[in-house]
Amino acid sequence: MQNFVFQNPTKIIFGTNTIKHIGEETAAFGNKALLVSGKNSSRKSGVYDQVQQSLKASGLAVIEHSGVRSNPVLNHVHEGIQLAKNNKVEVIVAVGGGSVVDSAKAISAGACAEHDVWKFFIGKKSVKKALPLTCVLTLAASGSEMNSGMVITNEEKKQKFGFANKLLYPMVSILDPTVTYTVPPDYTSYGAVDAIAHVLEYYFTTEDSHTPVQDRFMEGLVINAMESCDQALKNPNDYQGRANLMWSATLALNGLTGAGLGKVGFPMHMIEHSLSAFYDIAHGAGLSVVIPGWMKWKMQTDPTKFVQFAERVFHIVTGSDSEKAAAGIAHLEKWFQKINSPTSLSEADIPEKDIQKIAENAVELGKIWRMRKYDAQTIEEILALCK
Amino acid sequence: MQNFVFQNPTKIIFGTNTIKHIGEETAAFGNKALLVSGKNSSRKSGVYDQVQQSLKASGLAVIEHSGVRSNPVLNHVHEGIQLAKNNKVEVIVAVGGGSVVDSAKAISAGACAEHDVWKFFIGKKSVKKALPLTCVLTLAASGSEMNSGMVITNEEKKQKFGFANKLLYPMVSILDPTVTYTVPPDYTSYGAVDAIAHVLEYYFTTEDSHTPVQDRFMEGLVINAMESCDQALKNPNDYQGRANLMWSATLALNGLTGAGLGKVGFPMHMIEHSLSAFYDIAHGAGLSVVIPGWMKWKMQTDPTKFVQFAERVFHIVTGSDSEKAAAGIAHLEKWFQKINSPTSLSEADIPEKDIQKIAENAVELGKIWRMRKYDAQTIEEILALCK
Repeated sequence: MQNFVFQNPTKIIFGTNTIKHIGEETAAFGNKALLVSGKNSSRKSGVYDQVQQSLKASGLAVIEHSGVRSNPVLNHVHEGIQLAKNNKVEVIVAVGGGSVVDSAKAISAGACAEHDVWKFFIGKKSVKKALPLTCVLTLAASGSEMNSGMVITNEEKKQKFGFANKLLYPMVSILDPTVTYTVPPDYTSYGAVDAIAHVLEYYFTTEDSHTPVQDRFMEGLVINAMESCDQALKNPNDYQGRANLMWSATLALNGLTGAGLGKVGFPMHMIEHSLSAFYDIAHGAGLSVVIPGWMKWKMQTDPTKFVQFAERVFHIVTGSDSEKAAAGIAHLEKWFQKINSPTSLSEADIPEKDIQKIAENAVELGKIWRMRKYDAQTIEEILALCK
Repeated sequence: MQNFVFQNPTKIIFGTNTIKHIGEETAAFGNKALLVSGKNSSRKSGVYDQVQQSLKASGLAVIEHSGVRSNPVLNHVHEGIQLAKNNKVEVIVAVGGGSVVDSAKAISAGACAEHDVWKFFIGKKSVKKALPLTCVLTLAASGSEMNSGMVITNEEKKQKFGFANKLLYPMVSILDPTVTYTVPPDYTSYGAVDAIAHVLEYYFTTEDSHTPVQDRFMEGLVINAMESCDQALKNPNDYQGRANLMWSATLALNGLTGAGLGKVGFPMHMIEHSLSAFYDIAHGAGLSVVIPGWMKWKMQTDPTKFVQFAERVFHIVTGSDSEKAAAGIAHLEKWFQKINSPTSLSEADIPEKDIQKIAENAVELGKIWRMRKYDAQTIEEILALCK
């Protein structure tokens, strides 16, 4: 196990009938709030109104900033920062899924900076101050509700970049699984894929082979994400399925899985971000395209962990090590297919001829994320396994 | 899954060569520290001197309060509170195992109260303010380094009682596994038993049967605690064994395992506390006496979870449900024996004729912990299974 520092201050309020607490929780941080939300879903479901009412009942003045889209964009973040500055808001409230929470984090950092917020994303500036952030989560997926990171797309530059800073942990996140009953099957699946991807990035890229505590935790999270996603797809109103999917997704990226692993990479996300940047496909859908191909590529040189994965997650006990490793990947791919998440570029309508362009784009993010060993040729090789 | 609130603000600094940070970390909370420690071990190992040097290098004035013993006692806590008050200390530093950290927590609460600190333990008062606490941990066992609870023995009343308060999370805990190289085999084992007991209390007493995320996390922790304890006993200087045991013990009681379980009890601890209060045996040794007996008793009326435990922790796949459940308990008991932790009252030199007295004492703690269904007769039944 490598040395690490772990501290995660986010207060999680989890369960049914908890959204009513957003007002009192937010009022602890200020009197004037910027309420960041998506396009329609939180309005349709009534969650947005509940939040508004609770904020007002606690005496907060609310400035609205809605319209965050999936694969959230920099321009909309810029607008939010301007609104926050013009109105001198003291606290940001996010109501939505990972895209909304990510946008809200970028706004909370940008509102306290004199320079363009994008400088944080390209590593030219680091966050010194941020507005406090509270969240009401409506989608089990990104884990943003309990971590300090975010991802935003710069449309002009076709760059989907991310960064993290300890000032950007949400102060409070409210997770009511019942609000995810209305999440449609495709986004339920994509959310589970995202959570699983977060686990797999750590699990397979660690350079430390002595992390049994983290390994078992991660293997459990993958199993739980799959089982609970299956339950939620079978019956969208299955509270236990929704609750376990939601909590698995949060734990998948709250820092615990990676504590002690040392240097890890996020190669599958790195490649997926280029897919989303070019084709605007759902993040989880892009991930299920990349994951099996990357695993097949990685397994060639480094099979040990894949054997353990196959044995512990899918109970594969027969065959040689390389057969087991391959069977584990095949089982995961099959599960992606079962939940209707695409597992090939063609299935996601991404033309094979674009592989070179995608690889070149991913390399740029790789430079920022310090993953220079992934050159364009390597990424093309991986993408060739995703066809 | 039940509704829950989870927030754990403790900053963990984990790994080799980390003790040097205690000064700068502590200086963030004040200039005058009360340094709480045990009897000899941290002095012998050199850890105490390292801490002293680091505190002084960061400009802290240090008042020493050493001599905390295993099964820490109220009188010594009283002395610490008096020292803290007389010297107007601003921060408490604990250097030691769970007993030291627990004593330091009690002192940090008591130093800010006008009344006797014992009133917190018997539920007559709740903590409104506490001095900030930092820790350097020297034993993998109690988990106190990342939670808000503590246990202290009132010798006059023969009561070993505990309580928790969110103001009592350590601000910072430094966990350097190398300092546990000198922990002797018996206390290495007792520490592992303690960590496992913490997991099992939650695992088997939850009234919620839909906690798959927590279940797999807990099953992994039990396996890891056993495997890493075996490694540490085989080679006391095995860094990976010591590190994984230390991190497993911390995670076993930092709130995550219990989040979503709803109401749980701590029946094995409740009974063990009476053993320690009367016979001053090591907490882990008392637990390994109580655990198998309690499990056998509990299994009679509620076998389901025991089957899952047997299957997932010990890979027991054959036999009827009750055979599997019994085999799981037998495997655990056998492992306790393997690591030389006692598994019967007689082995721990506790006379069978005292069972009634022990049960009556445990009932008193049961009242405070709101576990009234454990009447004296029930506890006697359980203890009869521990003979």
